[in-house]
Amino acid sequence: MEVYLDNNATTMVDPKVFEEMKPFFIEKYGNPNSLHRFGAGTHPKMLEALNYLYEGINAADEDDIVITANATESINSVIKGIWVDKILNGDKKHIITSEVEHPAVTAACKFLESQGVAVTYLPVNEQGVLEASAVKEYIKEDTALVSIMWANNETGKIFPIKEIGQICKAAGVPFHTDATQAIGKVKVDVQDTNVDYLTFSAHKFHGPKGVGGTYIRKGYTLTPLLHGGEQMGGLRAGTVDVASMVGMGLAMKLATSPIALAHEEGHIKRLRDKLENAILEIPETIVIGGKENRTPNTTLISIRGVEGESMLWDLNQNGVGASTGSACASEDLEANPVMNAFGSDSELAHTGVRLSLSRFNTEEQIDYAINVIKNAVERLRGLSSSYAYAPESHKSAL
Amino acid sequence: MEVYLDNNATTMVDPKVFEEMKPFFIEKYGNPNSLHRFGAGTHPKMLEALNYLYEGINAADEDDIVITANATESINSVIKGIWVDKILNGDKKHIITSEVEHPAVTAACKFLESQGVAVTYLPVNEQGVLEASAVKEYIKEDTALVSIMWANNETGKIFPIKEIGQICKAAGVPFHTDATQAIGKVKVDVQDTNVDYLTFSAHKFHGPKGVGGTYIRKGYTLTPLLHGGEQMGGLRAGTVDVASMVGMGLAMKLATSPIALAHEEGHIKRLRDKLENAILEIPETIVIGGKENRTPNTTLISIRGVEGESMLWDLNQNGVGASTGSACASEDLEANPVMNAFGSDSELAHTGVRLSLSRFNTEEQIDYAINVIKNAVERLRGLSSSYAYAPESHKSAL
Repeated sequence: MEVYLDNNATTMVDPKVFEEMKPFFIEKYGNPNSLHRFGAGTHPKMLEALNYLYEGINAADEDDIVITANATESINSVIKGIWVDKILNGDKKHIITSEVEHPAVTAACKFLESQGVAVTYLPVNEQGVLEASAVKEYIKEDTALVSIMWANNETGKIFPIKEIGQICKAAGVPFHTDATQAIGKVKVDVQDTNVDYLTFSAHKFHGPKGVGGTYIRKGYTLTPLLHGGEQMGGLRAGTVDVASMVGMGLAMKLATSPIALAHEEGHIKRLRDKLENAILEIPETIVIGGKENRTPNTTLISIRGVEGESMLWDLNQNGVGASTGSACASEDLEANPVMNAFGSDSELAHTGVRLSLSRFNTEEQIDYAINVIKNAVERLRGLSSSYAYAPESHKSAL
Repeated sequence: MEVYLDNNATTMVDPKVFEEMKPFFIEKYGNPNSLHRFGAGTHPKMLEALNYLYEGINAADEDDIVITANATESINSVIKGIWVDKILNGDKKHIITSEVEHPAVTAACKFLESQGVAVTYLPVNEQGVLEASAVKEYIKEDTALVSIMWANNETGKIFPIKEIGQICKAAGVPFHTDATQAIGKVKVDVQDTNVDYLTFSAHKFHGPKGVGGTYIRKGYTLTPLLHGGEQMGGLRAGTVDVASMVGMGLAMKLATSPIALAHEEGHIKRLRDKLENAILEIPETIVIGGKENRTPNTTLISIRGVEGESMLWDLNQNGVGASTGSACASEDLEANPVMNAFGSDSELAHTGVRLSLSRFNTEEQIDYAINVIKNAVERLRGLSSSYAYAPESHKSAL
């Protein structure tokens, strides 16, 4: 059996989404900017897709949603757009983010630091959650942007976006949230929160790879990251990838409908909990950051004495796909920076295994995965020379 | 009948290319950066695609080809990478480009000008060609980059890339060429030319939209436009869109094989010439820039007394898709800047119609299009109030 439990890295394209995309490769291949029927023929489905995107995050008609290549492009466009507009060509000097953001945010901020920008990386608490009060404490007169993720990619922890948005609004500082791991898992509503920029990637919610979006609240602008043609109202140049945009639209609709979110909170959460509880029956295992306040599909578990990499190998041999953390960093075998950010010791940071489910996982698959994981732990603990030495972090957590 | 003659705006995805892409939506959807079988299962076809890309432009193994979202992203990454590396954090101050580049180059350069960078926009000669001697004349000690397109998107004119490359190499200045309109139409060989950066988009050669590439010669680097994960050797972050990359690879192979280029120079050129010569039989029509030294698929024709926009409308009513110029600028009804750059009067700039063929056009389609165009000219000239007043540019050209 093959069981894919790495849905925070990427997801299968929903077959309905692929059906929606298909006509735009060979049949309706026109450039939407062309004036003829080949171009205009793409417009109805593009508009429909845009409507689904607006509805999916409850954007107001006056707001913008810019189609991009992925969340990484969207995130870079926000952070570097703010850099150009507010710092290079303005009087601001400072950005606030967290220690546990996706590498797109962290690396863009590191780049800005290399250009003389001051960046504050806020730590998370012992539960892996950023406290809104920390933002309030560090926000300054010269703060150009606050960038805090909606949900963490590794732990699934949900951050207090509403409170942070209120703090930013009160301080008059633009607020960006990377909602890549939130959309389709929890309700994301830009009118209910004071989010000014929100970024996402379709392939995290059963849309295609290679397409994402940037929400921009009315009244906010950004110097484009991609200059060129007048696509996207001049906010993002480049021929629109119609198939991908149409696919993302339907994927958004399917992932964010009330029924879909109820299914996530119900069925998927139940499967995740079943998987997690079965693993927690194994002695000396913990959920990193604890069970509270998470996306319903994610668990990050530490199994004492078992290297995450070894575990993945064993799971892979048995058809189960999982992760030690962000796929964007997984070619790099250093200790996971998100887990380091918890203040965990290095053994904990090396023993994390992330299991992330989707609506395409079945109960049968979860039962199979439980069995594979239990066998793997038994085998690997038998081999482990370090297992005899329990680190304090585990002892105290048990 | 429907006849698509706007292949410089975008092309139909080759059905073989779409077949190649299909497995990567639902079946092999893993993130290539993941360590498990779902990720690794994408690697063989990605490597094959990369090989096709290297072969297609004759890149050396030591060079880089970075997969991006499109030529616009690639172009922005080169121009803004040079800006950051050589100007903001170096001692260079100046960029050379031409007056007839794609909007991606022009708008990125205009942005740099807004940041204090000096940009020289070289004019083209009466045949619409940039002369290499002009680059030599304007290159300076503090020139950070020369960016000149390989072939023009509107006229199809081919620029002296080899000579410009030699001039840049002798001066020690990096040379970027936007080869978007050249690949699959003429031979593009980065080892035969001194090109340091070369950019392209798959959807111009029967690959999918939403994917392109940046060639970077060994020894050259670029600060990434998209910071984040370690994809593409750290040169371009963001989850790789496997389906699109695989599609672009095969599209490159199909478009650049010796047989394909011979077909372009033979069959497609013959159809283009047949179409063009039939239009030139109509009194007071000219090929803008003349017939010499063009990509085999493109003609930009001016029909005296006939507004380009009116012509497009008439053609569209009869199933023929054409353009007045770049689709990236076509929502903007100002006079075409490329035609303005020829020093043409404004009537000439408003009467251009671009017809661009592909390997999917048939002789029957061309015969049909000739008939439609002749009827349209007759009708529109009958309606035209300006037709009585022949501008000097036409009189002298006839």
